[in-house]
Amino acid sequence: MASPKFQGWLGKNPESVNGKMEWGEFEPKKWSEDDVDIEISHCGICGSDLHMLKSGWGPTPYPCVVGHEIVGRAVRVGDNVKHVNVGDRVGVGAQARSCQKSTCPDCSAGLQSYCGNETINTYGSIYPNNEGKSYGGYADYNRTNGGFVVKIPDGLDSAVAAPMLCGGVTMYSPLKSYGCGPGKTVGIVGVGGLGHFGVLFAKALGASKVIGISRKSDKRDDALKLGADEYIATGEEKDWETKHARSIDLIVCTVSSEKMPLEGYLRLLKTKGTFIQVGAPDGGNLPPISAFTLIMNGIKVGGSAIGSPGEIEEMLQLAADKKIKAWVQERPLKDANKAIVDMEDGKARFRYVLVNENYGHH
Amino acid sequence: MASPKFQGWLGKNPESVNGKMEWGEFEPKKWSEDDVDIEISHCGICGSDLHMLKSGWGPTPYPCVVGHEIVGRAVRVGDNVKHVNVGDRVGVGAQARSCQKSTCPDCSAGLQSYCGNETINTYGSIYPNNEGKSYGGYADYNRTNGGFVVKIPDGLDSAVAAPMLCGGVTMYSPLKSYGCGPGKTVGIVGVGGLGHFGVLFAKALGASKVIGISRKSDKRDDALKLGADEYIATGEEKDWETKHARSIDLIVCTVSSEKMPLEGYLRLLKTKGTFIQVGAPDGGNLPPISAFTLIMNGIKVGGSAIGSPGEIEEMLQLAADKKIKAWVQERPLKDANKAIVDMEDGKARFRYVLVNENYGHH
Repeated sequence: MASPKFQGWLGKNPESVNGKMEWGEFEPKKWSEDDVDIEISHCGICGSDLHMLKSGWGPTPYPCVVGHEIVGRAVRVGDNVKHVNVGDRVGVGAQARSCQKSTCPDCSAGLQSYCGNETINTYGSIYPNNEGKSYGGYADYNRTNGGFVVKIPDGLDSAVAAPMLCGGVTMYSPLKSYGCGPGKTVGIVGVGGLGHFGVLFAKALGASKVIGISRKSDKRDDALKLGADEYIATGEEKDWETKHARSIDLIVCTVSSEKMPLEGYLRLLKTKGTFIQVGAPDGGNLPPISAFTLIMNGIKVGGSAIGSPGEIEEMLQLAADKKIKAWVQERPLKDANKAIVDMEDGKARFRYVLVNENYGHH
Repeated sequence: MASPKFQGWLGKNPESVNGKMEWGEFEPKKWSEDDVDIEISHCGICGSDLHMLKSGWGPTPYPCVVGHEIVGRAVRVGDNVKHVNVGDRVGVGAQARSCQKSTCPDCSAGLQSYCGNETINTYGSIYPNNEGKSYGGYADYNRTNGGFVVKIPDGLDSAVAAPMLCGGVTMYSPLKSYGCGPGKTVGIVGVGGLGHFGVLFAKALGASKVIGISRKSDKRDDALKLGADEYIATGEEKDWETKHARSIDLIVCTVSSEKMPLEGYLRLLKTKGTFIQVGAPDGGNLPPISAFTLIMNGIKVGGSAIGSPGEIEEMLQLAADKKIKAWVQERPLKDANKAIVDMEDGKARFRYVLVNENYGHH
């Protein structure tokens, strides 16, 4: 089958983040029989889209098309891709390829997002061997390596599935890896785009108690509506570190500020508890950590980056089975420029999803 | 049975660390039927003995007797202590009591060293309820709660067993907890009193490769003789962080300096690897940690404090089974003052053990 014509919202310079993306054609990566072309119906808006548009993480290779929470129909499937058929409803997240070699300790262990040999993002990566550049999901089509394309389970709304492909799995992966489940108390720091998935998936995984943690109390109602059992407002509740000391098994932290009260968060952990930092930091260090705090409580502080295709499939199935309702707000793809400005202004509750008016059949 | 008369090397002020301990009588904690009196044959010298003698960790309740790597014969056993009989060769480490309640999440889970309700050290702790004070093992007798007294397995030399009771288990516990075993590569930072146990136990637990890591190359020969497979001199080997990047599953770090190259150590970890800090720091924070480093490699940085009686028993049995030869140097108890001065001067290779000339039958 011939390739479709690829068009999308092009960011041509850092100004594009201010609602200045331009609709136009682009040349996708060179086709290989390992690839899948997706006719995009939905694409979530992730905070990192804004960083990428404005060259916030080093120079962006303009023109770019951002968006890496992509759902749509497979319209062309490479001969080497066995698990997807033309017409399937599929998704792809923030990773478009890894080395996938059987000799790679990461790829062979289902840890593709940590592959030390080759990590290609869904948007803005320059492929090796003159294969071209990756373009993201604010577009009508996307081309990605089949190893990173997953099927969306029946019963899961495309608009709900889309933001799970990056934001959702960023929370699901550490929750699953570090033992979230029955009998466990889990804390989620920050109740925003990522944090709201944290509360939803912690409950879905069966945690006995989920605690929303944020600076102010203005997120309390949302956290409880999402399913949190308790809420701590660290900026308002006196002596919160001592009052809730040693009460949480696992904390996943979506806030990345050098000013966050990390030592206080660590005091909330039970013996042998785990604190996992997710999401991309503003480029800095964690606040200072006392060795004494780690030693005397036997606790650990770690990090986690997105998730593997296997974890994404597991998560989507759980979301379908448990009928998880992510809090998404649909925005027409044609209004993408307005949507990213609203996102930058912090208006999303909690994730925006662009819907392609041409292909957005639920 | 009546209690023996307790005598030992008393530290009466911070000057005592300079070889000025004085031999004399002391009043042990009030006897309870939960206790065991031990006639001490051996006591290891641990770095923290020096901190305690000089009030390095806050004011020491002088007079004190330090020493918490105690081996000897049980000479009086409380009615409530069922696993020890008079005449047994027994040991006790740095912890003399915890709350031991079945409702305590730590004590009931075999994590006594992290008990949040009551942690009493073998030396220098003031007991609740006017029970008195704890005195350590630079003495002829020791009184300790039976729950923390372990039997020394046959075939394990008392002089070898003694320093394992604190120094040994401080390394054994994180190695065991964080998966040291066949197929794993383990790094031990610092090849000294603690680090030498790290190399020995990592090998005994079956690690496929053990790497000694230290600043200079002068510890290389010792590390290899102890059983290490490789050695990295971080102060001398150019580009060591990149050359050995992503090669180690678990690092246990015995060095506690705000100047240590922590980011470099972390780069040595494989995806999902673990870095565990042990031993008491000089009171400061860890060097700054980049959130990006933790996230992009899915790694974690934690701490670990000594070990439980259960872990000590496990470790001693492993040491007996594998015929582990710790590198200890015996010093007569009567020369304790000289031994601590030599210890302070860094002369121990790698642990001094005081032998009580009256009771020190091997």
